Amino acid sequence: MKKTMSLLILLGLLCVPALGQEAEASAAEAIEAVQNNLNIVWTCIAAFLVFFMQAGFAMLESGFTRAKNAVNILMKNLMDFSVGTLTFALLGFGLMFGKSGGWFGTTHFMLSDMGEGVESWNWTFLMFQTVFAATAATIVSGAMAERTKFISYLVYSFFITLFIYPIFGSWAWGGLLDGGGWLEGMGFLDFAGSTVVHSVGGWLALAGAIVLGPRLGKYGPDGKAKAILGHNIPLAALGVFILWFGWFGFNPGSTTTGNGSIGYIAVTTNLSAAAGAIMAMLVSWVVLKKPDASMALNGALAGLVSITAPCDGVSPLAAAVIGAIGGALVVFSVIFIDRVLKIDDPVGAVSVHGVCGAWGTLSCGLFNMDSGLFYGGGLGQLGVQLLGVGAGFIWAFGVGMVLFLGLKATIGLRVSEEEELKGLDIGEHGMEAYAGFQIFSNT
Amino acid sequence: MKKTMSLLILLGLLCVPALGQEAEASAAEAIEAVQNNLNIVWTCIAAFLVFFMQAGFAMLESGFTRAKNAVNILMKNLMDFSVGTLTFALLGFGLMFGKSGGWFGTTHFMLSDMGEGVESWNWTFLMFQTVFAATAATIVSGAMAERTKFISYLVYSFFITLFIYPIFGSWAWGGLLDGGGWLEGMGFLDFAGSTVVHSVGGWLALAGAIVLGPRLGKYGPDGKAKAILGHNIPLAALGVFILWFGWFGFNPGSTTTGNGSIGYIAVTTNLSAAAGAIMAMLVSWVVLKKPDASMALNGALAGLVSITAPCDGVSPLAAAVIGAIGGALVVFSVIFIDRVLKIDDPVGAVSVHGVCGAWGTLSCGLFNMDSGLFYGGGLGQLGVQLLGVGAGFIWAFGVGMVLFLGLKATIGLRVSEEEELKGLDIGEHGMEAYAGFQIFSNT
Amino acid sequence: MKKTMSLLILLGLLCVPALGQEAEASAAEAIEAVQNNLNIVWTCIAAFLVFFMQAGFAMLESGFTRAKNAVNILMKNLMDFSVGTLTFALLGFGLMFGKSGGWFGTTHFMLSDMGEGVESWNWTFLMFQTVFAATAATIVSGAMAERTKFISYLVYSFFITLFIYPIFGSWAWGGLLDGGGWLEGMGFLDFAGSTVVHSVGGWLALAGAIVLGPRLGKYGPDGKAKAILGHNIPLAALGVFILWFGWFGFNPGSTTTGNGSIGYIAVTTNLSAAAGAIMAMLVSWVVLKKPDASMALNGALAGLVSITAPCDGVSPLAAAVIGAIGGALVVFSVIFIDRVLKIDDPVGAVSVHGVCGAWGTLSCGLFNMDSGLFYGGGLGQLGVQLLGVGAGFIWAFGVGMVLFLGLKATIGLRVSEEEELKGLDIGEHGMEAYAGFQIFSNT
Repeated sequence: MKKTMSLLILLGLLCVPALGQEAEASAAEAIEAVQNNLNIVWTCIAAFLVFFMQAGFAMLESGFTRAKNAVNILMKNLMDFSVGTLTFALLGFGLMFGKSGGWFGTTHFMLSDMGEGVESWNWTFLMFQTVFAATAATIVSGAMAERTKFISYLVYSFFITLFIYPIFGSWAWGGLLDGGGWLEGMGFLDFAGSTVVHSVGGWLALAGAIVLGPRLGKYGPDGKAKAILGHNIPLAALGVFILWFGWFGFNPGSTTTGNGSIGYIAVTTNLSAAAGAIMAMLVSWVVLKKPDASMALNGALAGLVSITAPCDGVSPLAAAVIGAIGGALVVFSVIFIDRVLKIDDPVGAVSVHGVCGAWGTLSCGLFNMDSGLFYGGGLGQLGVQLLGVGAGFIWAFGVGMVLFLGLKATIGLRVSEEEELKGLDIGEHGMEAYAGFQIFSNT
Repeated sequence: MKKTMSLLILLGLLCVPALGQEAEASAAEAIEAVQNNLNIVWTCIAAFLVFFMQAGFAMLESGFTRAKNAVNILMKNLMDFSVGTLTFALLGFGLMFGKSGGWFGTTHFMLSDMGEGVESWNWTFLMFQTVFAATAATIVSGAMAERTKFISYLVYSFFITLFIYPIFGSWAWGGLLDGGGWLEGMGFLDFAGSTVVHSVGGWLALAGAIVLGPRLGKYGPDGKAKAILGHNIPLAALGVFILWFGWFGFNPGSTTTGNGSIGYIAVTTNLSAAAGAIMAMLVSWVVLKKPDASMALNGALAGLVSITAPCDGVSPLAAAVIGAIGGALVVFSVIFIDRVLKIDDPVGAVSVHGVCGAWGTLSCGLFNMDSGLFYGGGLGQLGVQLLGVGAGFIWAFGVGMVLFLGLKATIGLRVSEEEELKGLDIGEHGMEAYAGFQIFSNT
Repeated sequence: MKKTMSLLILLGLLCVPALGQEAEASAAEAIEAVQNNLNIVWTCIAAFLVFFMQAGFAMLESGFTRAKNAVNILMKNLMDFSVGTLTFALLGFGLMFGKSGGWFGTTHFMLSDMGEGVESWNWTFLMFQTVFAATAATIVSGAMAERTKFISYLVYSFFITLFIYPIFGSWAWGGLLDGGGWLEGMGFLDFAGSTVVHSVGGWLALAGAIVLGPRLGKYGPDGKAKAILGHNIPLAALGVFILWFGWFGFNPGSTTTGNGSIGYIAVTTNLSAAAGAIMAMLVSWVVLKKPDASMALNGALAGLVSITAPCDGVSPLAAAVIGAIGGALVVFSVIFIDRVLKIDDPVGAVSVHGVCGAWGTLSCGLFNMDSGLFYGGGLGQLGVQLLGVGAGFIWAFGVGMVLFLGLKATIGLRVSEEEELKGLDIGEHGMEAYAGFQIFSNT
C-alpha cells in the first residue's frame, strides 16, 4: 500500500544502528519529515479553500447584477482563473518569488528551479500562490460588470496575473521564497494580503470602472444615481458564505505551516467578519432606514478584507474593532463612489477590496501588538503601512489606467449600446442564463 | 521562510547534547508538538466545515419558503451567526467551558484565561465551539420563517448564544475544557450534540413557532392544513448537500484530535444519512403516494441529526438502523406537527432537529457498544439518556417560551398582516430577492 | 480532555526506560503513529471533498436541463449516493478490495475483516472508496436526464455500486488493499480513476442514453438535432466550480498519504483544468462563432477528467497539454454524438467522462515520465493503457446494455409521453422546482 511508503522511510531513518547523537539526529529528521508533510497537507487544503472563493465571487457578482448578464460574468470568473493559472506559471510566479534585487524576481520562470522531484515544497507553494493571484484578478470583474467586451476582459486577465499582481507582490512578499522586496525590507506588514491581493485588485477595478464609464441608465439626465437591482440575492448570499468559508484558507493558510497559530488567526478573522456584517447592517439601518441585505453582505466581506493584513498580530478585541470600522466604511464608501464620484461599480468591489484593503493595512500600524501605535510602537509602523498602501495604489491604479485606456484605444473595452441593452449573455455568448423563465423590467 | 520555523524548534529540541533519557524526553516532546499541530489543523478544518453549514441552512431555509421572504431569511442566517460569534466570545464560551460547580462556568469570560500566546489550543477550541453554538442558533430561523420581525430575531440571536445554549452545553460538555456539568457527571452520552446542539435548537424553534402562530393562510377556516410550497428546490437540495458535507466536520471533528477514529465516525455518519434519506423517501412513497423530495432531503438531515450523539460508539449496522428510524420518524413527525398539533414549522426544523435529536440521543442507550441495552448494558444508560433528553427539553423549551412571550409582549414578535402578505423582503429590508423575474401566486 | 489522549500514548511509548536501540525503536513507533494519523486526516478530508462533488453534479445536471425536471434530477443524485453508500458497504467494497484471484474480491463483505477497532485504517479507506464509487454512479444521471423512470434509476443505482463499478475496480485497484487484479498486474496506470471511475460511468451513461432514446422534440422530422436549453446556467457554473474544488480531493487525495506529492498533483490537476476550459472556449469560438459557456464549463471538466489518470506522473507542461487536448476533444465529441450519432446526452456526460476518461488514460502511455512513449518508454505502456481502456468499455458498456435492456423489458425505463411533456417533477414527485415563478416555453 502506498500509505505505508512514507512510514517506511521514517522507520528507515531510525533503524540505522546509530548510537547517541546519531540516533537523535535521525529521529529529528524523521520528526521534521512528518511536520513537513503536515505543512504540505495544511497549505494544500488552505489553497483549495481559496480556490473555492472563485465560486463565491462568481455567485456574488452574478447575483448582484442583472439576469441578462449572468452568463457573461460567470464566464469571466471562469476565464480569469483559467488564464491566470497559466500566466502565473509562465511568468508571474518567477516575477513574484524569484531571486530579486528588490523590484522583481528573475528566476523560476516557466516552472524552472522548482526543487527536486514531486515532493518539493515549491509545488505546494505554487498552488497556494496561484489561487491568491487569481483572487486579485477576479475582483475586477465585478466593478466592470454588465458592459465590458469579453475579449478585452481576457486580455486584462492575461496581464494582471502575468506581471501586474506579481510585481507588486514581489515588493511585499518576495522573501517568502527566494526573492526579497523593498517594501518588506522596510518592515511593511501585510500578513495575508489586504493590500497585496485586495487593494491591488480593488484599484485595478477602480481604473476599469472609470475608463469604462457607467452602465446605460445608471445616472439620469440630472446626474442622479439610479439603483440597478441585482437579480438573485440568494445566489449573492451563497457567494458571501462561500467567500467567508474560503477566507479560512486565505488568512490562517497564510501561515503555510501547520502550527498552533492557525486557530488564533481563524478567531480574529471570524470576529472581524461578524463585526463587519453587524456594523454595515446598523449603519445602513440609520442611513438608508432599513437593514439592507446588500450592505450587510458587503459588510461581512469588508470585515474579512480589513482583517487580512493584521489577522496574525492583533488582539481579538482589536480584530472586532477593525472589522466594525471596515463595515461602517464600506457603506459610506459605496454611497460616496456611487453618488458623489459617480463611478459605477455594480457590486461595490472598489469599496470592499480597495478601500477596506487600505484600511486593514493601515490598521496594522495602529493595533499590531509588537509595533502598533496603540501598543507603544510610535508612528514608524503606521508610516511604513501608509507607504505600502500608497505604493499599491500608484502601481495598480497607474498600470490599470494605462492598460484599460490602451484596450479602449485598440480593440475597444465596451460593448455596443444595443448589446448592452439586450444583455451580454446573448451578445457575447449567444445564450441565456435562465431559459424558460419570464424575466421583465430587465434594463 | 515561515514554514521552517516550527521545524527549527523541533530540531532545537533534539540538538541539545543530551544522552539516554534526556534525548528520549526531548524526542517525545518534539513528537508531541507535531501531533499537537495536527490536532489543531484537523480541528480548525472541521470548524471551517461546520461554519459552512451556515450556507447550507441559509439555502435550505430560503429554498423551502416563498420567494417574497428569501432575503429576510438569508439576513437572519447571516446575522444569527454574526451576533452569535460576538456574544459567544463575550459570555457564552465562559458559561459553557469555564470552571464550574456543575451548573455553569464562571471563568474565560470576554476571552480571558485563553492560555499563553497565539499557539494556545484554546483559540482553536473557541473557533470550533463558536460554530457549534451558531448551528444551534440558526436552526430556529426555519421554524419561525416568513412572519417574524427582524429586530426580534436579532434579540433572540443575542440571548441564545449568550446563555441559553451555553448553559445547557456546560451540563453535558463543560469538562471538555475547564468545566464539568451534572449531566456528564452522570455518564450522559452525546458525542457531537444530538441534544446539546440539535434538540436545544429544535425545542427553541418549537417555542418560537407556537408563540408566533401559523402563517396567514396556512390553516383554512375548517382548520385543515394547506401546503405552502417552497420556491426553489434546487437551492434547498444544495443546502442539504452542503449540510451533509459540513457534518463531516461536525461529527468526526468532535474528536478534536487528529487520530484514527475520524474515518470510523465518518463512516457511521454517512451510513446513517444515506439510510435516513432512503427510508424517508420510502415512507413518503407509501404515505403520500409519491417519493417526495422534501421528505427525502429532510430524511438525510434526520439521519445526520440522529447519528450525531452515537456516531463514535455504535456499529456501522446500528448506524444505518439509527438513520433509517430517524428517516421514518421525520416523515411522521412533520405530518403530526403540521396536521394534528397544527403548529406551523415551514421547513420541518422541529422534527429534524428536535425530534430526531432526541431519538439519536436515546439510541446511545440502545446501541452503544459499551453500555447500550442491546449490548448487555442494562437500562442504566438509557435512563441517563432519557434524563438528558428531558433536561434539554425543559431548559430549551422553557426558556424559549419565556423569551418569545417576553418579546411578544414588548417589541412584538410578528410582522403586520399587511407586511406578511406583501413579503418580509420588501417590508423589513426594502428589496426583492429576484428583481426582474415574474413571480406569481406567491401567497 | 480527549485531545491529550493520543499525546499520552506517544509519551508512554517514549517513557519506557529504554536504552540505545530500544529507545530508537519506540521513537520510531511514535513517529509512525503521528504520520499514520496525518494520513487518516488527509484521506478523510479528501473523501469529504469528493463527497461534495455530489453537490456539483446535482447543480450541473439540473442547471443544464429544464426547470420541469429539476427536482427529479436532484432526487436521482441524492438517491444514487444514498443507495450506493449502502450497497458498496454490503458487497461492493469486498468485491473491489477483498482477497482476489485477479477477477474480483471475496472477503470484506458486509464490512467484515475491517481490522481492529475504530482506529483501523480500513474505515478511512472505506470512506474514501465509497465516495469514489458514488461518483461513477452519479455520472449516469446526466445522460439519462429528463425521461427516465425514477424507480428504474433506483434499480440501476443499486447494481452499479453493488458490482458493476467494484468488479472493474478490482482489476485495476484491488491491490490498494487486500486484492490484486489482472490489469494492475500488467502495469496498467490509472492513478485516480480516468478509466476506473469516469470512463466506467461514461460508458454506462452511453448505454443508458442509447436504450432510452432521445427526448421528445430533440430531433426534428428531418432528423436534425435541436438544442434544448438548460434552465439555470449560474447553477451549472456553481456545479463546475464545486466539482473543480472537489477534484482537489479526488486526485491529490488518491495518494491516501499525507506526503509531499500532494502539492505536485494539485498543480498538474489545476493546470489541466485551466487549459481544458480555455481550449474548449477557443474551439467553440471557432466552430460555433461565439465563446460558448456550456462548452467552456464542460472543457474545465474535460481537463479534470483527462488528468485524473496521469496526474501523479507527468510534467506540468504535459498536464496542460493533456487538458488542452481534452478541452478540444469534448467540443468535437459533444457535437459528434449529438449530430452524427444522434444520441441524446443532455449534459454531455459521455463526452466528458467516457471520451476524456479514455484520452486521459491513454495519455499516461505518452507522457508518463517513467514509461511513456515520449520519455523513451516505447509502445509497451501505451499498449497496456489501450487494453485497460478497451476492457473498461467492454465491461461497462456491455453490462450497461444488459442492465438497461433488462429494465426496459421488465419495469420499463422511460416515463410516458404525457409525463415527459408535463415534466418529471410533477409526474414522478408531485412537486415543482420553482413554485411561484412564471416559467414558459418549457418543452
